[in-house]
Amino acid sequence: MDKPTLPKGTRDFGPAVMAKRQFIFQTIRSVFRKFGFQPLETPAMENLSTLTGKYGEEGDQLLFKILNSGDFLKDVKAESLSDARSLTPRIAEKGLRYDLTVPFARFVVMNRNEVSFPFKRYQIQPVWRADRPQKGRYREFYQCDADVVGTSSLICEAEIILMIRDVFRTLNITDYTIKINHRGVLNGVAELIGTASNPTALFVAIDKLDKIGEEKVREELAGKGLNGRSLDLLFEMLNVGGSTPEKIAVLRERFKDNAPGLKGVADIETVMDLLKSSGSDDAHVEFDIPLARGLSYYTGCIFEVKINNVAIGSVSGGGRYDNLTQAFGDKENLSGIGFSFGVDRIYDAMEELKVFPKKTQISSNVLVCHFDEASLRYGLRVLSSLRTEGIACEIYPDISKIKKQLDYANKKQIPFALVIGSDEMSSGLIALKNLETGEQEKFYLNQIIDQLRS
Amino acid sequence: MDKPTLPKGTRDFGPAVMAKRQFIFQTIRSVFRKFGFQPLETPAMENLSTLTGKYGEEGDQLLFKILNSGDFLKDVKAESLSDARSLTPRIAEKGLRYDLTVPFARFVVMNRNEVSFPFKRYQIQPVWRADRPQKGRYREFYQCDADVVGTSSLICEAEIILMIRDVFRTLNITDYTIKINHRGVLNGVAELIGTASNPTALFVAIDKLDKIGEEKVREELAGKGLNGRSLDLLFEMLNVGGSTPEKIAVLRERFKDNAPGLKGVADIETVMDLLKSSGSDDAHVEFDIPLARGLSYYTGCIFEVKINNVAIGSVSGGGRYDNLTQAFGDKENLSGIGFSFGVDRIYDAMEELKVFPKKTQISSNVLVCHFDEASLRYGLRVLSSLRTEGIACEIYPDISKIKKQLDYANKKQIPFALVIGSDEMSSGLIALKNLETGEQEKFYLNQIIDQLRS
Repeated sequence: MDKPTLPKGTRDFGPAVMAKRQFIFQTIRSVFRKFGFQPLETPAMENLSTLTGKYGEEGDQLLFKILNSGDFLKDVKAESLSDARSLTPRIAEKGLRYDLTVPFARFVVMNRNEVSFPFKRYQIQPVWRADRPQKGRYREFYQCDADVVGTSSLICEAEIILMIRDVFRTLNITDYTIKINHRGVLNGVAELIGTASNPTALFVAIDKLDKIGEEKVREELAGKGLNGRSLDLLFEMLNVGGSTPEKIAVLRERFKDNAPGLKGVADIETVMDLLKSSGSDDAHVEFDIPLARGLSYYTGCIFEVKINNVAIGSVSGGGRYDNLTQAFGDKENLSGIGFSFGVDRIYDAMEELKVFPKKTQISSNVLVCHFDEASLRYGLRVLSSLRTEGIACEIYPDISKIKKQLDYANKKQIPFALVIGSDEMSSGLIALKNLETGEQEKFYLNQIIDQLRS
Repeated sequence: MDKPTLPKGTRDFGPAVMAKRQFIFQTIRSVFRKFGFQPLETPAMENLSTLTGKYGEEGDQLLFKILNSGDFLKDVKAESLSDARSLTPRIAEKGLRYDLTVPFARFVVMNRNEVSFPFKRYQIQPVWRADRPQKGRYREFYQCDADVVGTSSLICEAEIILMIRDVFRTLNITDYTIKINHRGVLNGVAELIGTASNPTALFVAIDKLDKIGEEKVREELAGKGLNGRSLDLLFEMLNVGGSTPEKIAVLRERFKDNAPGLKGVADIETVMDLLKSSGSDDAHVEFDIPLARGLSYYTGCIFEVKINNVAIGSVSGGGRYDNLTQAFGDKENLSGIGFSFGVDRIYDAMEELKVFPKKTQISSNVLVCHFDEASLRYGLRVLSSLRTEGIACEIYPDISKIKKQLDYANKKQIPFALVIGSDEMSSGLIALKNLETGEQEKFYLNQIIDQLRS
């Protein structure tokens, strides 16, 4: 029999990695809660009718589809068997969740009457994409989303910035940039250079500036018919420099009589102002005029977070949308805003930066060691007393040499050992061994409990 | 466009339900940790070669299979297209996790050299089964497993009982039974009545005693060739009554010269004795001689937990196995023991018994209310101060009537509101409103923080 393997692009998370991951999840979850977000979970499987058409054609290709149960060929006509594309919808009705936003929109539409708006929800679950696996890109990975729907207040935008900084502060990530832009600014630019009627090609090209540079983007856009004057104007706008207030001032001047542009600039200004009202400042925030973000459903502010000095793409992103639920036939415009932390990338970045806390607790605090049946039995009672006090502990389950027991503790990074022999049983004084320093001293059980709890 | 729906047998968990579920998960997780178990997570998808053949033929039918990506029909020969059974392995290489035990065994085999034994792992993840949905049975549900591999110490069995009682105590479930039996006892019985060579049919029939009663089981076994004398002897053994020590005494007498039977009885006795050594007793434990449990890989003690007075099957179960990893070609016998909590059934039982704590916190502690732009801005600063102190809070994001803001707080069960008007801004004395009692009093911010933190 062959040794078992894992499906491509998936991973096991053993105890040491889990401890670090839980540290990240716990940090994000507690910040979400502190900001008034409530938890939601949706099923891993969704009907393909819910998922298809929401992520563009490329996204549809990347959906994992689940084979119908039972005799799934029963009602399939012969002509459908000719190719995969026509057969798929006949033999697969369900797919795996591709992100958390579409399931959230589906939930809101299905629970319109029970939900009280503005609805602030967070959701921490894995998603699946049949992408080609590569460094930092997995086929199963976690998203941690927070969304507010039912308000257009820019306080939500300001709070996203506050939450990102709160999370990164706790994670000990110090060098990062929160890029902010606004679809209005981009639409304003498109209008100025005369491509407002179909700006998508423009935004797609701009989005690549980071990767391929100005010259290549110019070439691409020239190929799409943009003339030299428009291109010059475009890059004059995209390259406006200075602080955020300086950029705002220049753009406002440029956007005279340009409604979407002025709205974009005003929103960014208000967000900055709300940060000040919150007693905060614009630390880490950069008004990044070329930031476009692919997803077409954004309508207001957009965000992207990059950790500096690591070879990892953006670790968080999001933006405002005005009609998320319309894809499900919802008549009302529900304005909302959401953003997402990519835990797997944050993990990789933290490993690279070596910023994980040295002691992420991954096991018991104490191992109870013993010499024979009698001291093992005595140890069981000690174990119960420790656990009653909430101290995580374990006993070596077999009668073995002390060295083997201590090796076990060291391998599991258990920081303390209690060694119980006949002396200990008769005196009640138990040896507490610090496995890091090697120090050992005898104490009564209640003293040991006091020490371990502190 | 049709209103979206959920796939059959799956559920969304909104904030109120999530709060209760998190209470259960948190309870189980902290007990697992207190007993020295470490976390593991495995991917939702496994290769079908890992899953198939591990759960019996019925189990194989219930696996959700994932359609290969891309042009999955490319290399499929025409003759495979005739029926679903022969087509499936050609177009689906992966399936969804059916339980947590097989992925755990796969992990141990793949990480033999890194894992230090005895390995105590816990795992809390959803599993998927294409079962017919019905009350208490879902197609996606969570399992919470704890396993120890690499030791045959009966301390593990005793600790399972201690953990179950610890979890149920915290969950406020008081009326339940932990049934314990031993495969040796069953094998001993099979030997006594002369069916030892192929006991499976016997165990399958016995397992139904609870549901269909003695008469029907007698009929079934008679149909399989068991004679009247054997049947009488069988039920004499299964119906041995009394306390656990009394049952042990009777069986020991019966099992004279019957090795598996004597081993089974001795193990049960030792487990009870280890409970005593731990300063505990046999509360809730019942030596249930007919308890068989379906899974054929058990070799020692087996467990099943039933909550009394609710119409829900077992909520937890497990047992000892000696060769879990052999299915993956592992040569060594790794003795281990595992058990699993079914959170979804525990949830349903707790709802039926109405034992959830009244105040499962599901939202912020405070809503900051305001009258106009100035008080909203003032409120943002108050909000920051509260959050710095770790108090979960939010501000109503739009300028609206106070009544609307308080309605929002009430709907979300936010217990307190801070009402900020011009008086408050000039004096620094802010009205703190208890939304449950309606009481309202003015305090300085630092006093409010002290109150909310306590």
